[in-house]
Amino acid sequence: EDGKTFFWAGKYADDMNSRETLDTQLNVFETFEPKLSEASKNADILFLANIQPDIQYEVRQQCANAKFVAMDSMDLWINIARDSLQRTIESVDGLLLNDGELKMLTGKPNLVQAAAEVRSWGPKVVIAKLGEYGAALFTEGGFFGLPAFPLHTVLDPTGAGDSFAGGFMGFIAAHHDEELDDALLRRAMAYGTAVASFNVEDFGTDRVSRLTAEEITERVSELARITHFEDSPIELGR
Amino acid sequence: EDGKTFFWAGKYADDMNSRETLDTQLNVFETFEPKLSEASKNADILFLANIQPDIQYEVRQQCANAKFVAMDSMDLWINIARDSLQRTIESVDGLLLNDGELKMLTGKPNLVQAAAEVRSWGPKVVIAKLGEYGAALFTEGGFFGLPAFPLHTVLDPTGAGDSFAGGFMGFIAAHHDEELDDALLRRAMAYGTAVASFNVEDFGTDRVSRLTAEEITERVSELARITHFEDSPIELGR
Repeated sequence: EDGKTFFWAGKYADDMNSRETLDTQLNVFETFEPKLSEASKNADILFLANIQPDIQYEVRQQCANAKFVAMDSMDLWINIARDSLQRTIESVDGLLLNDGELKMLTGKPNLVQAAAEVRSWGPKVVIAKLGEYGAALFTEGGFFGLPAFPLHTVLDPTGAGDSFAGGFMGFIAAHHDEELDDALLRRAMAYGTAVASFNVEDFGTDRVSRLTAEEITERVSELARITHFEDSPIELGR
Repeated sequence: EDGKTFFWAGKYADDMNSRETLDTQLNVFETFEPKLSEASKNADILFLANIQPDIQYEVRQQCANAKFVAMDSMDLWINIARDSLQRTIESVDGLLLNDGELKMLTGKPNLVQAAAEVRSWGPKVVIAKLGEYGAALFTEGGFFGLPAFPLHTVLDPTGAGDSFAGGFMGFIAAHHDEELDDALLRRAMAYGTAVASFNVEDFGTDRVSRLTAEEITERVSELARITHFEDSPIELGR
């Protein structure tokens, strides 16, 4: 911890699905005022990773022409910067959040109600990250659910959410000239899920740094196979 | 509680996804020796609902010719009748269990390892019930994951597992003359999920007793829609 970067210390429960924040040191970010380059200001696709929400808001304002802006956050900001967080959420197109944090943020008892509440604030896209259970997408078009990729061993869930966001936003950026409809968002969910699954197979960023495009598309195909069933009509009660 | 039936009292956590057993009264079932009719003994498809595992085993032995036998269980029997439970599991084709109970039963840290362990005992089919997160199927052919049907309001999760089992086994029974392959099992998972979703929308058995076949097949079609994404090849990094 060098005093210059946002620092988060926490621990995971034995099932690696729930997280407890032990310490957060904002350090230089407490007074940080982001100034983007002209090139960055012209970004088409913007992802505001988890940080103090006023900083996210400042960056978002500097990218006025972005076609799709999404953000992440965490329980800390819900607890200590609730108004700032809501203002920032109102300014973006998509919110990615853990399911527990979505319920905490909205005070709603389940994801369907929590996502509807967030969508009423502005974001057209809400993604609930469900840890080992996968992820869920809520849009005007409805609901899309995708299980996590089944892994024999999960070594380190740290960064699963960030790598999901990377795969998700990377897919959207790679298709920025196409219409951002539900079909594209669903495919982006699959790419996020695939990238996250590689991330948790190893400690740190080792596995992801060695990752090839072929490995990702192969895992996306596997996700399509393991979620498919035939909806052929049946005769009940024969 | 009339002293004549198996009695379970418990409570659900606020998120309606975890259950705590407060009291279990076996009553007459402690000394019950099931004697099946000849018609019942010839059952093709048999489901052993949650009860003391020696009773399940006795019933299973009387249905020697059943083509597919599945069972449910619960944490109580893992704790107080572990050997009986394992003997019964070894005698069936399919095990349905909550994910936490699957980990408890096998001592494995995740569902992939827990399901592989149970499959090494005999059952070719293992289903992990994931509450609000859906259900997962493990077979020799691999993994299938299905989210729960998204509901605005969950009134009462009591019986969700039993109604899932009813829809799942009912679909298999309705197709008992077909090969019980992964495609059929996946469709059965969707029917179980659909029936369970109706069950939790209301208290008790009211909603399920009014259920029509058309409502179930419509919800299965909806499940197919909300889990589908196009796996079309993409060019990464363009």
